[in-house]
Amino acid sequence: MADPIDFYFDFSSPYGYFAAKRLPAIAARYGRSVAWRPMLLGAAFKISGARALPLMPLKGDYARNDMERAARLWEIPFKVPSKLPIASQAPVRISYWLESHHAEMKVPAIMALYHAFFVDDRDISDPETAADIASGVGIDRDVLLAATQAPEMKERARAETQAAIDRGVFGSPFIIVDGEPFWGSDRLDQVEKWLETGGF
Amino acid sequence: MADPIDFYFDFSSPYGYFAAKRLPAIAARYGRSVAWRPMLLGAAFKISGARALPLMPLKGDYARNDMERAARLWEIPFKVPSKLPIASQAPVRISYWLESHHAEMKVPAIMALYHAFFVDDRDISDPETAADIASGVGIDRDVLLAATQAPEMKERARAETQAAIDRGVFGSPFIIVDGEPFWGSDRLDQVEKWLETGGF
Repeated sequence: MADPIDFYFDFSSPYGYFAAKRLPAIAARYGRSVAWRPMLLGAAFKISGARALPLMPLKGDYARNDMERAARLWEIPFKVPSKLPIASQAPVRISYWLESHHAEMKVPAIMALYHAFFVDDRDISDPETAADIASGVGIDRDVLLAATQAPEMKERARAETQAAIDRGVFGSPFIIVDGEPFWGSDRLDQVEKWLETGGF
Repeated sequence: MADPIDFYFDFSSPYGYFAAKRLPAIAARYGRSVAWRPMLLGAAFKISGARALPLMPLKGDYARNDMERAARLWEIPFKVPSKLPIASQAPVRISYWLESHHAEMKVPAIMALYHAFFVDDRDISDPETAADIASGVGIDRDVLLAATQAPEMKERARAETQAAIDRGVFGSPFIIVDGEPFWGSDRLDQVEKWLETGGF
């Protein structure tokens, strides 16, 4: 059995959302599973010196158009959130709490959170909102809300982020296939080519 | 007759080089010409706050691998230059001097300069080297060398760069098709789709 494809992303990243919508089907075509690794990209930005695209002069205006165009091309429901970027601690902590306690609910909750943010414009940086949305997968909302404040989940989110940085992750989405790193939803075609050919 | 596709690039940009190799064939498939607009990207970086990829922590290591992998995928001869980025004033000034005096030599000279830098590892930031290489298209080398120091060519390079920035250009390559902006060689598939469909 081949190793899973490591999929690093930030909940605040539109291109991470696009990859979340597209990567599972690509992986499945090659019989591969996906390891979903939400992270706190701000910590990587502190090292790389990068800033969130929407905040950069010149790039910010371009980025909004590019996101909307990409969503149309790939037929992904998408609306630029009124607040972007956001802090993503709450959804990250909920994701890892689910991984530890109800693993089968983790990916459905991630997709529900992404959809809430990038389609319904709900502010998932707010712990109450994040818990409300994730509870839709069938987990008690107050348990999820507690997870957003639990010291062990704060530490877990930090540790997962550090582990990602230690592997060279600096952006979202960031995909590692059999040790080979691919940054950006615009590398998904190369990810597929890599899976098809075993490397080029 | 449709307008040309505006192609902005920096001579120091590997992805600009890749686009230079790939864009003409894409444009030709849709009966479109390309307007080649070399520019001094550093001036745009001062506004956007961006830095050259190879200089960024984390991103730099990734970028080298990404460039080499893209070149293999697209079967483009490529070697990471020993010095990257470089200042690109000399080749930009030569390009616009040719546009004004021997327009048909401009693109061949650009391709020769790009090839010298990204295949043969020659430092085209050096005016003597740039003039040597560009002279291969059949223009006197000393005339080209003089162009690299001519006040009107210095002003032209600045003006072209400012005009690019005024249109929102902040990276290389940057391609504008009928008013629609595309940043990055990884957007060439979308450029082609745009040409094919008239917009999506």
